[in-house]
Amino acid sequence: MTQHDHEPQGVSRRRLVSTVGAAGATGMAVGATGGAVAQAVARTDRKAPTPLSSVGSTRVPFHGKHQAGITTPLQAFGHLLAFDLVSGAGRKQAAKLLKRWSRTARELMAGESTADSTGIALDAGPSSLSVTFGFGRSFFSRTGLEKERPRELAPLPDFSGDALDKDLSNGDLWVQIGCNDGLVAFDALREIQRQADGTARLRWQMNGFTRTPGATKRPMTMRNLMGQVDGTNNPKRSEEDFDRRIFVPSSSSPAWMADGSYAVVRRIRMLLDTWDKESLSEQEKVIGRRKSDGAPLTGGTEDTDPDLEKRDADGSPAIAADAHVRVTAPATNGGAAMLRRPFSYHDGFRDDGAPDAGLLFIAWQADPQRGFVPVQRKLDRGDALSRFIRHEASGLFAVPGGPSKGEYVGQRLLEG
Amino acid sequence: MTQHDHEPQGVSRRRLVSTVGAAGATGMAVGATGGAVAQAVARTDRKAPTPLSSVGSTRVPFHGKHQAGITTPLQAFGHLLAFDLVSGAGRKQAAKLLKRWSRTARELMAGESTADSTGIALDAGPSSLSVTFGFGRSFFSRTGLEKERPRELAPLPDFSGDALDKDLSNGDLWVQIGCNDGLVAFDALREIQRQADGTARLRWQMNGFTRTPGATKRPMTMRNLMGQVDGTNNPKRSEEDFDRRIFVPSSSSPAWMADGSYAVVRRIRMLLDTWDKESLSEQEKVIGRRKSDGAPLTGGTEDTDPDLEKRDADGSPAIAADAHVRVTAPATNGGAAMLRRPFSYHDGFRDDGAPDAGLLFIAWQADPQRGFVPVQRKLDRGDALSRFIRHEASGLFAVPGGPSKGEYVGQRLLEG
Repeated sequence: MTQHDHEPQGVSRRRLVSTVGAAGATGMAVGATGGAVAQAVARTDRKAPTPLSSVGSTRVPFHGKHQAGITTPLQAFGHLLAFDLVSGAGRKQAAKLLKRWSRTARELMAGESTADSTGIALDAGPSSLSVTFGFGRSFFSRTGLEKERPRELAPLPDFSGDALDKDLSNGDLWVQIGCNDGLVAFDALREIQRQADGTARLRWQMNGFTRTPGATKRPMTMRNLMGQVDGTNNPKRSEEDFDRRIFVPSSSSPAWMADGSYAVVRRIRMLLDTWDKESLSEQEKVIGRRKSDGAPLTGGTEDTDPDLEKRDADGSPAIAADAHVRVTAPATNGGAAMLRRPFSYHDGFRDDGAPDAGLLFIAWQADPQRGFVPVQRKLDRGDALSRFIRHEASGLFAVPGGPSKGEYVGQRLLEG
Repeated sequence: MTQHDHEPQGVSRRRLVSTVGAAGATGMAVGATGGAVAQAVARTDRKAPTPLSSVGSTRVPFHGKHQAGITTPLQAFGHLLAFDLVSGAGRKQAAKLLKRWSRTARELMAGESTADSTGIALDAGPSSLSVTFGFGRSFFSRTGLEKERPRELAPLPDFSGDALDKDLSNGDLWVQIGCNDGLVAFDALREIQRQADGTARLRWQMNGFTRTPGATKRPMTMRNLMGQVDGTNNPKRSEEDFDRRIFVPSSSSPAWMADGSYAVVRRIRMLLDTWDKESLSEQEKVIGRRKSDGAPLTGGTEDTDPDLEKRDADGSPAIAADAHVRVTAPATNGGAAMLRRPFSYHDGFRDDGAPDAGLLFIAWQADPQRGFVPVQRKLDRGDALSRFIRHEASGLFAVPGGPSKGEYVGQRLLEG
């Protein structure tokens, strides 16, 4: 299916940015809009002699074994949305919506204009846009698909430190948008939201951000709003058991979740005014890592495993008993592992004057009962960091495997 | 003054990112932290063989004739903050605050760590960070400086279309932060806010965004959340009267505003659900420009002047009488001009389900009575666009000229 099937009058963003230097050759091929395209290219080219950088031109594949947005490198902008089916909408309507959403995701991720484009993303490349879709526990009762509900969607346990806002938690459907350009991301958000009209209504929405590509040389791990290097202990794709820990096996049950993953989403507010008043050494003691480079307090570099047995000259543990890095260490959690891929968020200031900011924690795993849950149980009991954070929202979503060509996300569930 | 005066134990972000490929040569010079720096550089270098791009390494000068953030190319992230002096704080305390703020702005814009760094920006280059400071009308009575209050700070007139939230309007002090990296921007925001502690309290704060560098080839004009090319008619720096229109002359009164500018700030919400339901041709009629490339409906390219006299075959004006481009055309406003340098904003969704999104309109001019005010008066009377927007907040700030070396912003006012 070519883009022309869906955009008889639109201007292809991909073509718009790719015809530079070849406007003569391709300008003829774009039909009625060719003149305008060639003109726009010539004009922007004249204004900015440097080519569109890889930031704009990078495309994330929509089709594949797994959905995009899980092992995709973190993007600068993120949007999380949850929807509830409206009264009267069931399996059939949900299937139509996922079909619309999938088509839009495929087109936008390829840098193409959609049939009902808002125009916000015009001129820009896809900028590593990814759109990821998931199903919440409530989706299955609403659509009569209880039999297909994975046991992995059992409600997360209550944690003593939780202060969850139900209106900002869970939901029938979940969409994660990531993009290195804020306008392309917003365009995707608007199109996704408009296409839900009449079938599902927005339950909650959160906006996040991380580093801009090229702003730092540190590629895999980012810093969070506490200033700490975040994500060091993430499983690496090069590790033998990465796939087994993060993705549902092809042969598992239910069959429609083959090659999928489970996303735990937590909105974790950081008490930054309290945190920032602590000394550097106190902050490092809470985490168990150096702030400057993320190396464990027992030495080495960021990649060095913390030496949890090491003791200081006075006999006390070099990494405190309640240090975050000790409590979360895979070695102390029976090898539990999840792939954390969070965005930071900052929604201004609360009525009490504190910053409304923190982490949109997103963790991916083949089974939350062996990933997030045991680790969070331990954190809940004795993590020095808990004084400085509040879990304010929570969601758990089943994210099916990636679509094959011609397939839409969730088709194996909805037409299975 | 070198950075070592302020950061005896800190790690210089600038050095951290600039020693790659020369770690041996410069690693010796950074004293106690040299080892860690060289190590971090080597490690990040190993992980990411590509060098830090210009996105991260670009510095905006703090010192100069004008403050940064006026003619500086738009950055991907923006924060606007307004503060009110606390009870008991006067001219002396304000001077100390502006001195602290200026030092921090200078250091962060140079990519250096500050004495009380949050660490959030570690590893990153300055990423075109700019910090701009301004004074609101109320500042002058609070500090006994009424005599120095510019007549240009006279309150803006009421416009019939205004629905202003006073709590989100005006303020004693105004800070604009722009940066191509979200974490560097947030770090600056936190440091600016913490340094105000005890002297001024936050009155309001707004977060915005624009394009990421490299996402598009269109450099000077951006698209707003309506999808329209925005900023086409901006005066160009190459134009003879640019400085006269945008900056206060060196010989003007009051003397402390020499080479400064006046910023009009409006939070303009867009009724996107209404707008997006209009057809493309109706949207283009409202604006008077093509959505695809910003060219006027009377033809040409984005840079072509609209032909306001042109009529269609049926005798009606080719650009409607109430088209936004006609009402705002300099030709119909006695040559009034302002430099618009806006960010888009998106704060999620309102209780009524509509997106809380639009434009953080920021307009720069030598005199708002000859820039923003006459244009907005005309818009208020008959702009087709007014059906789709709401002015929800407003501010007017006197932004003094840029500091010389050793000077802080506002020194000429506060010690004049």
